[in-house]
Amino acid sequence: MEQIQGGITAAKGFLAAHTAAGIKYQDRADMAMIFSRQPCRVAGVFTSNVVKAAPVVWDKERVETGKEIHAVVINAGIANACTGKEGMNYCKKTAQKAAKTLSISEDSVLLASTGVIGKQLPIERITAGIDKLTEGLSCELSAGTQAAKAIMTTDTKHKEIAVTFEACGVTATIGGMCKGSGMIHPNMCTMLAFLTTDFNISKELLQKALKEDVKETFNMISVDGDTSTNDTLLLLSNGMAGNEELTKEDAQYDSFKLALHTVTEFLAKSMAADGEGATKLLEVRILGAEDKNQAAMLAKSIISSNLVKTAVYGNDANWGRILCAMGYAGVNFIPEQIDLWIESEGDGQLQLVKDGTATDYSEKLATKILSAEQVNVIVDLKIGYETATAWGCDLTHDYIKINADYRS
Amino acid sequence: MEQIQGGITAAKGFLAAHTAAGIKYQDRADMAMIFSRQPCRVAGVFTSNVVKAAPVVWDKERVETGKEIHAVVINAGIANACTGKEGMNYCKKTAQKAAKTLSISEDSVLLASTGVIGKQLPIERITAGIDKLTEGLSCELSAGTQAAKAIMTTDTKHKEIAVTFEACGVTATIGGMCKGSGMIHPNMCTMLAFLTTDFNISKELLQKALKEDVKETFNMISVDGDTSTNDTLLLLSNGMAGNEELTKEDAQYDSFKLALHTVTEFLAKSMAADGEGATKLLEVRILGAEDKNQAAMLAKSIISSNLVKTAVYGNDANWGRILCAMGYAGVNFIPEQIDLWIESEGDGQLQLVKDGTATDYSEKLATKILSAEQVNVIVDLKIGYETATAWGCDLTHDYIKINADYRS
Repeated sequence: MEQIQGGITAAKGFLAAHTAAGIKYQDRADMAMIFSRQPCRVAGVFTSNVVKAAPVVWDKERVETGKEIHAVVINAGIANACTGKEGMNYCKKTAQKAAKTLSISEDSVLLASTGVIGKQLPIERITAGIDKLTEGLSCELSAGTQAAKAIMTTDTKHKEIAVTFEACGVTATIGGMCKGSGMIHPNMCTMLAFLTTDFNISKELLQKALKEDVKETFNMISVDGDTSTNDTLLLLSNGMAGNEELTKEDAQYDSFKLALHTVTEFLAKSMAADGEGATKLLEVRILGAEDKNQAAMLAKSIISSNLVKTAVYGNDANWGRILCAMGYAGVNFIPEQIDLWIESEGDGQLQLVKDGTATDYSEKLATKILSAEQVNVIVDLKIGYETATAWGCDLTHDYIKINADYRS
Repeated sequence: MEQIQGGITAAKGFLAAHTAAGIKYQDRADMAMIFSRQPCRVAGVFTSNVVKAAPVVWDKERVETGKEIHAVVINAGIANACTGKEGMNYCKKTAQKAAKTLSISEDSVLLASTGVIGKQLPIERITAGIDKLTEGLSCELSAGTQAAKAIMTTDTKHKEIAVTFEACGVTATIGGMCKGSGMIHPNMCTMLAFLTTDFNISKELLQKALKEDVKETFNMISVDGDTSTNDTLLLLSNGMAGNEELTKEDAQYDSFKLALHTVTEFLAKSMAADGEGATKLLEVRILGAEDKNQAAMLAKSIISSNLVKTAVYGNDANWGRILCAMGYAGVNFIPEQIDLWIESEGDGQLQLVKDGTATDYSEKLATKILSAEQVNVIVDLKIGYETATAWGCDLTHDYIKINADYRS
């Protein structure tokens, strides 16, 4: 496996486009399109929120009934959530327009929206945008990058990655892009993410691989504990790498899964690091757990705690808040047995807690470690052998500014 | 029932004291004592956090075994949590010292601490403080007020209330004090609260009334979603009002419960309003629910959402965030059926949502309503007839400042 340049257009047969449709933002692209030369099998994971945006309802139906997909149309600025029948009608109109301009069937178009809830889409601008997107489709790597920029809302960086891997006798590619960065929380994280691969794999295995992978990547990040109405993760496979369809969970499947995981972990971490107002990435590793669930619940509780997140922002080794957040995670453990370290790339590890109480650590060194761009917290429960890792960010003045001053 | 002046010393036979023991803060009182002339029956509710502070372990044991209680010793500045055997040993030393100076048994002393986690108590200062507290005990109303001030941490206001009520042929009194204001979250809220009554009531009914009441008061507030290691709510009854012991759930019991509820709701709301950095109180009322649990889960999810809290801070009628927070509350409802209003005392009600989508409301009036000191959000699910109310506050720049810049 090897990381290569590019994102959603790295895999064979995938094209992308972007345009400034003027939906909400001025002077920037706010619509993107993904198009595959060949029809795709598709796997999808969607928000668990009871309130589901219209495009989520649209996509879910198509992914579940196993329709072949040719294109995805994405807009930023308005979420098309809480928009009633009109919102669903706009989904239909958008898909119809894309189907017409691309000469594909309406049911082979998926949709995704992100932005403010409760507003109706300016459908005229959307359909005008689709004309421009269709004209602009390109298989260049830069077309993927521009699409990744067009779907941003409060993100400060675009997020994309691609890798190649060997399986079934061919060199296949998987690439992806995503956007965060508020309303980000496990189950499933508040985000839009689009993955494309030319690897030929059955619909069943595609969905299985994605569903399992999400548990350890996108569902292990949190920015603010708010699970959005629009979370959408799509994985499109057009089979153009040329291998025979993979239908068994063999070593070839493992190669695919590893490549997929590399892409999703990178995107998930990028989202956490670029959380609204964030100044640093917080990685929490739980070791020595009895089972996976215990480890995951504890890791997620720590990265979700406002008090932990503000302490990390303040470079304050307030480990008591970490133990406190573990204590209300909803799973049991033995507080008197916990060992805890903080770690950064430059300054190595520092043990703060041994057997549940403070070590005689240097506050100065602790502050130095916490000042790094990525801070790791490692907790050993000393009960069993399972582990879990979760990613979050600090909670800062800018988070308040972004969310109190603007309607996002 | 009538609200009167005072707090924990309003009921007959209760004395209080405060002193500056120099535990962490300078130039302010940081220890308090409650003493009853007659031994008390006691009811208690404690944190659900797996990590329990030493004084919580101490109190829980004594409350559960039904010991009679004479005194409570409270300190602010250090939480005595994650302090291992030494921390438990300091509990014993504190109780022993208080027992000696007050000439009561060691087991009749309860303890409570609040402050930073992981530090050991300066036990010499604590015992010296107990000498001063014992000397300073007074039944004056002002003694209760001073005690309420001594237990504050990041609170900006002290919190106390007292009411009288008629039951069992006597006029009885119930009073209380509490402190917030970070690490405040349901189950049970992160706080210390102490209630005193001279009403004569059985231990069983005392505990039952408190446990039921907490569900609708202290467990319905949230400041930051962090359930602390030290949450303690104690209700002491010394029976000095002169009535015969109440042992039945009759109309007299209802009078007691109503008085109790008046006190606890006032204190719970005061805590939410004085949440760290808060500029306003947010009250969320869910109407038309199928059952109590559904209503309570939805109300709590709304007041706990960082995105709702920042929108309220910014006076932004971003109702989409409210529906979103309901959607991940973990209970079902029908989004397309929801009606939603905001309300303030000065400007009345304004409907923002009808049947799940936006009304044609005035943004100007919405902003005006949201600028009030108390903002109410009313959501009608139109499914059934149950209701629930929860209280929270906005999330502000000062919350970040308080928690990133200081070790609390």
